Amino acid sequence: MKDLLEDIYKQCLPLTTKGKVADYIPALAKVNPNQFGIAIYTNEGKVYSAGDAKTPFSIQSISKVFGLTLAMQRKGDDIWQRVGREPSGLPFNSLVQLEYENGIPRNPFINAGALVISDMIESHYAASNLVMKHFVRRLARNEAIKVDEVVAASEYEHRSRNAAMAYLMKAFGNFDNDVEKVLLSYFSNCAITMSCIDLAKSVSYLANNGVHLGTDRQVLTKNQTKQLNALMATSGLYDEAGRFAFKVGMPGKSGVGGGIIAIVPGKLSICVWSPSLNEAGNSYAGLAALEMLSEYLGWSVY
Amino acid sequence: MKDLLEDIYKQCLPLTTKGKVADYIPALAKVNPNQFGIAIYTNEGKVYSAGDAKTPFSIQSISKVFGLTLAMQRKGDDIWQRVGREPSGLPFNSLVQLEYENGIPRNPFINAGALVISDMIESHYAASNLVMKHFVRRLARNEAIKVDEVVAASEYEHRSRNAAMAYLMKAFGNFDNDVEKVLLSYFSNCAITMSCIDLAKSVSYLANNGVHLGTDRQVLTKNQTKQLNALMATSGLYDEAGRFAFKVGMPGKSGVGGGIIAIVPGKLSICVWSPSLNEAGNSYAGLAALEMLSEYLGWSVY
Amino acid sequence: MKDLLEDIYKQCLPLTTKGKVADYIPALAKVNPNQFGIAIYTNEGKVYSAGDAKTPFSIQSISKVFGLTLAMQRKGDDIWQRVGREPSGLPFNSLVQLEYENGIPRNPFINAGALVISDMIESHYAASNLVMKHFVRRLARNEAIKVDEVVAASEYEHRSRNAAMAYLMKAFGNFDNDVEKVLLSYFSNCAITMSCIDLAKSVSYLANNGVHLGTDRQVLTKNQTKQLNALMATSGLYDEAGRFAFKVGMPGKSGVGGGIIAIVPGKLSICVWSPSLNEAGNSYAGLAALEMLSEYLGWSVY
Amino acid sequence: MKDLLEDIYKQCLPLTTKGKVADYIPALAKVNPNQFGIAIYTNEGKVYSAGDAKTPFSIQSISKVFGLTLAMQRKGDDIWQRVGREPSGLPFNSLVQLEYENGIPRNPFINAGALVISDMIESHYAASNLVMKHFVRRLARNEAIKVDEVVAASEYEHRSRNAAMAYLMKAFGNFDNDVEKVLLSYFSNCAITMSCIDLAKSVSYLANNGVHLGTDRQVLTKNQTKQLNALMATSGLYDEAGRFAFKVGMPGKSGVGGGIIAIVPGKLSICVWSPSLNEAGNSYAGLAALEMLSEYLGWSVY
Repeated sequence: MKDLLEDIYKQCLPLTTKGKVADYIPALAKVNPNQFGIAIYTNEGKVYSAGDAKTPFSIQSISKVFGLTLAMQRKGDDIWQRVGREPSGLPFNSLVQLEYENGIPRNPFINAGALVISDMIESHYAASNLVMKHFVRRLARNEAIKVDEVVAASEYEHRSRNAAMAYLMKAFGNFDNDVEKVLLSYFSNCAITMSCIDLAKSVSYLANNGVHLGTDRQVLTKNQTKQLNALMATSGLYDEAGRFAFKVGMPGKSGVGGGIIAIVPGKLSICVWSPSLNEAGNSYAGLAALEMLSEYLGWSVY
Repeated sequence: MKDLLEDIYKQCLPLTTKGKVADYIPALAKVNPNQFGIAIYTNEGKVYSAGDAKTPFSIQSISKVFGLTLAMQRKGDDIWQRVGREPSGLPFNSLVQLEYENGIPRNPFINAGALVISDMIESHYAASNLVMKHFVRRLARNEAIKVDEVVAASEYEHRSRNAAMAYLMKAFGNFDNDVEKVLLSYFSNCAITMSCIDLAKSVSYLANNGVHLGTDRQVLTKNQTKQLNALMATSGLYDEAGRFAFKVGMPGKSGVGGGIIAIVPGKLSICVWSPSLNEAGNSYAGLAALEMLSEYLGWSVY
Repeated sequence: MKDLLEDIYKQCLPLTTKGKVADYIPALAKVNPNQFGIAIYTNEGKVYSAGDAKTPFSIQSISKVFGLTLAMQRKGDDIWQRVGREPSGLPFNSLVQLEYENGIPRNPFINAGALVISDMIESHYAASNLVMKHFVRRLARNEAIKVDEVVAASEYEHRSRNAAMAYLMKAFGNFDNDVEKVLLSYFSNCAITMSCIDLAKSVSYLANNGVHLGTDRQVLTKNQTKQLNALMATSGLYDEAGRFAFKVGMPGKSGVGGGIIAIVPGKLSICVWSPSLNEAGNSYAGLAALEMLSEYLGWSVY
Repeated sequence: MKDLLEDIYKQCLPLTTKGKVADYIPALAKVNPNQFGIAIYTNEGKVYSAGDAKTPFSIQSISKVFGLTLAMQRKGDDIWQRVGREPSGLPFNSLVQLEYENGIPRNPFINAGALVISDMIESHYAASNLVMKHFVRRLARNEAIKVDEVVAASEYEHRSRNAAMAYLMKAFGNFDNDVEKVLLSYFSNCAITMSCIDLAKSVSYLANNGVHLGTDRQVLTKNQTKQLNALMATSGLYDEAGRFAFKVGMPGKSGVGGGIIAIVPGKLSICVWSPSLNEAGNSYAGLAALEMLSEYLGWSVY
């Protein structure tokens, strides 16, 4: 396995020069694009990695997986009164669908859906902005994980589109808390920095029927785990979920920081990372690496 | 297994009174709603069934699976120049998305996408309207399978919306043949009648890495099989693909005749049928039966 | 007045090299772009003209004015059950709005609306395809007016988008007759050729409270005349109706043949023509000439 | 004229029981629906009125006319870089069009457009929230005109949809100032209370080539006046601009407080008011009164 990862690393490294780094906020635009890491964490507890697998990066939308997990723990099926479970069929930050569907976001992995999930978490916790950081520290067993406050502040400063979505949902009665306060928590969570190894470990419960490897803690029930994986499979990669299922065939979630996590149920969890993005906002080299892994090892669930 | 199917049959039978039979064409509206069948075909060649599993019904959109298979055999990856692979996020017959996306349908399982696939098949065969009937006869090993000409004629008479889609794609240069001729073939295929057992057998190659059980013929490559299953998983159930992944977790395809096929890769293929539909156009009792099967036997792929 | 027209003609003639001739059908694309004519017909019966005012050209969408007039004569206010009276706010041939609004076109001057009007006329007349030609011959008092059959045939060959609209309306129950037959009449009317002088004379009833100059025949009632002018004022220039009201301030209707008619109620009717179009599909030089006329003579109704 | 107004008042008064008062904010919902006033102010300086013509009411969107006038005075044609001049073809508060058109509102009379105009005024004045109040006091020559602070506060509290639009425009780079600050000014202007007589006098410059009756001050140039009237004619009555042109034929602007102003260029200005609204958000009795006035006196400009 180690050799395979090294091989894939070498083949995909040249792709880090394709595409471009997310530049909608200055703090992300400064990242060196020529970084590339892979990490695999098996259900037997083994870690395999290649490249920059220990370098922390901005998890961005991968935080939506942890947010949804926290909400499923607290709210169960009530979540689905306020968020849908269908693919959006439109770019991840579109207001059009949100307006036609009366402020109910299509799923928890588009920004509008994650904002509603953040609003639910806000209603549950006093220090809502710290909850996710502590959660991923426990999952990754790494107390060094932290929030990049410069990125968080920069995202807040450029909050206009997310603020527009939150206010539109509020106009439809689907947002309970103060918009500004929820945005601050939401951006803080997006700005958490973790390495490929941190992330592969953190999402291992999704490959292991909901049980956290190491502590044996039940993070989600077996059924909830299948549900969350199903949502990732249909909606986890922005407007490329179909192509990802077609070519990779694993439940997965990407972020504009260049990270992608993917799950082989019953077997292992993966995290790849490279900052340069394709037009759909997914890591160029990361996608290529996952396609090769899936092809070589027959890991498509389909 | 036999007992389980009987049990599920009994539990779901009362649901056949819920929802309503497709009534957009008179010929379908006359079907007795209180019918309900289940059939499972394992990769070992065993058939399990319950209820009306031998009654032929109108396969309707399930024909899109056979159409795509035929096109993949002939055209390979060229298909994806003219049809997308992403979930649509909108009702199955919407023209809105088609216009915004310049006549390229989102995927081959919405009507517009299936019409483009039919147009490709039209370009390949002299007797294009007979191709699919002969194909499913071989797959099901049942020469008695036929087209319900009354249904086909009724669909053609009410062709306005499908004609609108075909002409719109032609306006964008994504339709090669005469619209009326392709529509005739398309409706003829939708009007094929098969039983649950016929269908479970016919799609067995999708559970068996592309190999037809019985003849060992390679219908699709292993990779194409995963691809087709992936497309069903993300786009197979109209505007309920996400909910189906969430609750059932199998690649599947439904039709407004009330049939649903589903695949457990590497294990078996399933067909359920009951004519009464929910608001999304999927069989009420059929969905419930698949949810129970998935839950009892842990068949979700996620 | 004659001098003014000559002056405007000279100032605007260089603009005929800007923009481009309609090229969606080959027959129109061949027109010499450097033609430019102006004609004014006063309520006292005087004709003023400059440039190529006697050259016949394809009236295209200006035929929608005559179609609506014929429908108002026959159907009165029943028209408004099947067509709206609001500006469309979208390009003239969009299906999006038509789908969201259940097959009721926004107004009679977008293609979908004109097709519904043609469908109404089809229901009323045996030789529906000849009605408009005879009508404009009487209005212009010119028996030489004819249909350019090459253009009509070319439009029918490229009918896909209009066919899509007609079928979509039929799917919503807002189209009574055979789609192909109505399209033939519709394209035949669009392909009528008239000169600026023909057209200025033909629409003189709209400047004269509905009374045809010369024959004193009441083409429309005074109230209907104001209504038709109001519809032109809000919806007559595709997606530039607002800009036209802002800069010219007259009820008007344009066609992709490069003609524009405009009305100064109580005073006179105008027709300008030059084949080269701006991005919104309106004659470049024609718009400029009308803006100058309006500015110099204070003819804005607002 | 006085008798005619009394007659129309009597005929339309029963309509005040139809429709319903705007209830999107509590402060407006409490208004007594059975109020109805008419005022006409001629270019000779005569006032005619009937009913509750002296009762102040919330001018709401009629303030958009004064906002645009102020912006035209300061910015001239630069305005049209940031706001369009076309009818919207969609309900007055839709975000869909705003997103498709990259944050450029269709015209200054939909909420998004008026917010951009407010943003322009914010950039120009220190005490931007007082500018309009002082402007209308001078126009109406009535120092008693004031802002209903309860209404303004209630609108701000229910600002979600307008905040969503402002943030969306900011996301597209079409909003310069702090969103919250501009919203406070905007709602303050909407909450100005004026009577029919106040309003008829205030907009008299639009009937008089831009010259304020009484002071002879040139509020707008003659050309700008025609332009503003043209914009009202194509976009002044939400999604009923076409019907209003068709039935009334005057440039006009309505507000959800139940007021409508209308202009007969060169002759007079009108204000009608009755709080009960039809489904499009326009005053029920007010529309009926204007239709009668137009019909009896032939005041349609078309």
